[in-house]
Amino acid sequence: MKRIKIKELLLTKPEGQTVTVKGWVRTFRNNQFISINDGSTINNLQAVVELNSIDDETLKRITTGACLSITGELIPSPAKGQAVEVKVKLLEILGDSDAEKFPLQPKKHSLEFLREIAHLRSRTNTFSAVMRVRHAMAFAVHKFFNDRGFFYIHTPIITGSDAEGAGAMFRVTTLDANNPPRNEDGTINFKEDFFGRETNLTVSGQLEGETYALALGDIYTFGPTFRAENSNTTRHLAEFWMIEPEMAFYDINDNMQLAQEFLQYLVRYALENCAEDLEFLNKRAQEEEQTKPQEQRSELGLIDRLKFVADNDFQRLSYTEAIDILKNSNPNKKKKFQYLVEEWGVDLQSEHERFLVEKHFKKPVILYNYPKDIKAFYMRQNDDDKTVAAMDVLFPGIGEIIGGSQREERYERLLKRVNELHLPEKDLWWYLDLRKFGSAPHAGFGLGFERLILFVTGMTNIRDVIAYPRFPGNAEF
Amino acid sequence: MKRIKIKELLLTKPEGQTVTVKGWVRTFRNNQFISINDGSTINNLQAVVELNSIDDETLKRITTGACLSITGELIPSPAKGQAVEVKVKLLEILGDSDAEKFPLQPKKHSLEFLREIAHLRSRTNTFSAVMRVRHAMAFAVHKFFNDRGFFYIHTPIITGSDAEGAGAMFRVTTLDANNPPRNEDGTINFKEDFFGRETNLTVSGQLEGETYALALGDIYTFGPTFRAENSNTTRHLAEFWMIEPEMAFYDINDNMQLAQEFLQYLVRYALENCAEDLEFLNKRAQEEEQTKPQEQRSELGLIDRLKFVADNDFQRLSYTEAIDILKNSNPNKKKKFQYLVEEWGVDLQSEHERFLVEKHFKKPVILYNYPKDIKAFYMRQNDDDKTVAAMDVLFPGIGEIIGGSQREERYERLLKRVNELHLPEKDLWWYLDLRKFGSAPHAGFGLGFERLILFVTGMTNIRDVIAYPRFPGNAEF
Repeated sequence: MKRIKIKELLLTKPEGQTVTVKGWVRTFRNNQFISINDGSTINNLQAVVELNSIDDETLKRITTGACLSITGELIPSPAKGQAVEVKVKLLEILGDSDAEKFPLQPKKHSLEFLREIAHLRSRTNTFSAVMRVRHAMAFAVHKFFNDRGFFYIHTPIITGSDAEGAGAMFRVTTLDANNPPRNEDGTINFKEDFFGRETNLTVSGQLEGETYALALGDIYTFGPTFRAENSNTTRHLAEFWMIEPEMAFYDINDNMQLAQEFLQYLVRYALENCAEDLEFLNKRAQEEEQTKPQEQRSELGLIDRLKFVADNDFQRLSYTEAIDILKNSNPNKKKKFQYLVEEWGVDLQSEHERFLVEKHFKKPVILYNYPKDIKAFYMRQNDDDKTVAAMDVLFPGIGEIIGGSQREERYERLLKRVNELHLPEKDLWWYLDLRKFGSAPHAGFGLGFERLILFVTGMTNIRDVIAYPRFPGNAEF
Repeated sequence: MKRIKIKELLLTKPEGQTVTVKGWVRTFRNNQFISINDGSTINNLQAVVELNSIDDETLKRITTGACLSITGELIPSPAKGQAVEVKVKLLEILGDSDAEKFPLQPKKHSLEFLREIAHLRSRTNTFSAVMRVRHAMAFAVHKFFNDRGFFYIHTPIITGSDAEGAGAMFRVTTLDANNPPRNEDGTINFKEDFFGRETNLTVSGQLEGETYALALGDIYTFGPTFRAENSNTTRHLAEFWMIEPEMAFYDINDNMQLAQEFLQYLVRYALENCAEDLEFLNKRAQEEEQTKPQEQRSELGLIDRLKFVADNDFQRLSYTEAIDILKNSNPNKKKKFQYLVEEWGVDLQSEHERFLVEKHFKKPVILYNYPKDIKAFYMRQNDDDKTVAAMDVLFPGIGEIIGGSQREERYERLLKRVNELHLPEKDLWWYLDLRKFGSAPHAGFGLGFERLILFVTGMTNIRDVIAYPRFPGNAEF
């Protein structure tokens, strides 16, 4: 008999019809009530075994984690909190689960412990909810752009250039590590490597994305990016997914507008399509909050926070305005900031961003027009000769969730900046070419996908919002 | 004034309204007719300059490849093949293009030449069409699975295990290539590497995908995969994108059914959503065909081939049946095959697959139940003890487009096979765990995304259906 998913079954009118469900046992009470989950929804189905209808041998095998196929009648449930239940007619054990050995017991496990059994943690409520929301967000990303006539471009993962300089890179090689071919001067002969040169994992698809924006108009990337940085924080991964739209004919204002619309669309999509999972995660986050000291608790719960972001314009202000606010702020005057804000030109620290977002404006903030010396070479130089048309979107609890800029489309200006910063002009020939042949104003930004998932799920460690996190010392599974 | 995309403009009723378009000059005839394209569609817009309305200096700068902003009246076009045109009121050069130096002249360039300027080839009709179709196919992949309740999982790119053994791998490292840390016995000390072990780029997300199928039910991956094989063919890339659905409670028949529905959905989606690009590519393929000797030409044109696949069931037959057909086939008897088919158990070569698909059945073929000795360790062993529940979908002109199987869900059987093949049991602990705790029948397959794009676009070299192809000796851009 064709299996019906529990998500669908729970919405089906119970008329005593015969149905088949398959899934994993969450709990089994009184040798009678099986709570079963198949991953399609956070909700379990209750299957009720009639006394003496199943032999003892089989009953013993209905343990937490076991996989069952159940056929029975769909009837209204007398129990609270569920509309339907299944009266078991036929029960088959598809896969046993030794109760003594199964690592997931029906109790609360620490997230640290669950990270060590990442191949099983997806069978918990928390992780299945997070991964369903993650799926919904990925789909919403594609839908948002597809509906607006953007084209998805797969920019390369293995790259020969370290042009962006966004961070330390992983080398990709097939050379014999023990005994690599060497040049006469003793250095490694990368001409013998697979690609005939030294290659690395990409830190961003932006530069290649720009080549497509200047051909197809509006494009976006959505792919893995890498940082070989030895940072063991709750906000960094060595391998993470990034979304990078790039738009011909956009200036910095169009760019800020799109960034806001995009984030609000995603948050609204989650609210509309992941209601049950978000309710669960909302409760979960609430319980976490209770364990914190009063002054560290968020004012808003998860769902309220999402609604707030979806419904309110983001505060736009220039870096210069932000510096003024920060200089005159209480924590700066009272020397509560770890890094005091004293002069224009310094890079903002996480504590400053959080102050602006969480204390001063109490809403998402878009900072723009940063000092050119603290930003990347490709950002468009403003007429003041001091700033570039950069923008960062700052979110409560997350900090920078989006970074972007209008790009320098003027060949001479770009070339000068490349040389000032001693970047390898010869590796950037194709990027410079874009400014020689039919250049156009254009802009774009990058959204760290896992940062978005942190925000939408209320999880606090980035290692808990990706299937198999990669960080220093860890590439298990 | 807000820019309107040419795709939308060409569908707008011309009533003399003022519009602004931005894009790149394809041709400029008689100092009067500008053909302009913005990448939103294969079609160009004709902008008509009134005599003497624009100064000579500017007219000279309207060269192929230049980027323009044009504001003017949208009027019905007297010219054939276009409903509307724009009477230019205001023309601004956004980016010049030196006609002498611009590599893309208004003539036919070889695909080989265009590969060398991959940063500009997206401004040609062929490549912009291919990339728009590629986008549509990527979106259709997500839509197909999302509509059916599958969850998208990002399986890891950097992996510590070479368990699948699907091919040679790229090493990922941050060790100093010149002077890596060594153990006492002189071997490289990978404990000092970034992840504390030797790591590689993934060849498949399947094994990790299975862990999620046995938690969420139906999942799929869509990400880059890698092969460090020194193959310079028109069908292989070192970096390519793969889609790998994995379904709990599916057997091999469900798997074959899903594979067919999936491919037919994608092809139909292309026919419905990419009609203009496909018409262009159809003509292009036709012209290519004309250059071939009569006997090598396809019987069907591109669009007819797509319709044929969308509308006809795929032929399913077992490996054993296929061997019988091949053994008794004319090319085998007349020794026309390079590899003669003599006995059960041999692996099928491309020539055999093509014979079955293109000559014998004249439609897509799904072969299943292959000899276990030529297939991977994780495929489910059939009761005959000789075959496994593997399946390959074979397409005309492409060969294998999908490979998959029902997975071995029985712990003892799987472990035995792992040991027979001397696979590293200790690296597979988590994969084996799935069979210990709530195992379930499950199945899945992998679709090479670029192979699909080859089929749908009628292009013949896989390097021409991805933005920046990676192959031995090439990681430019």
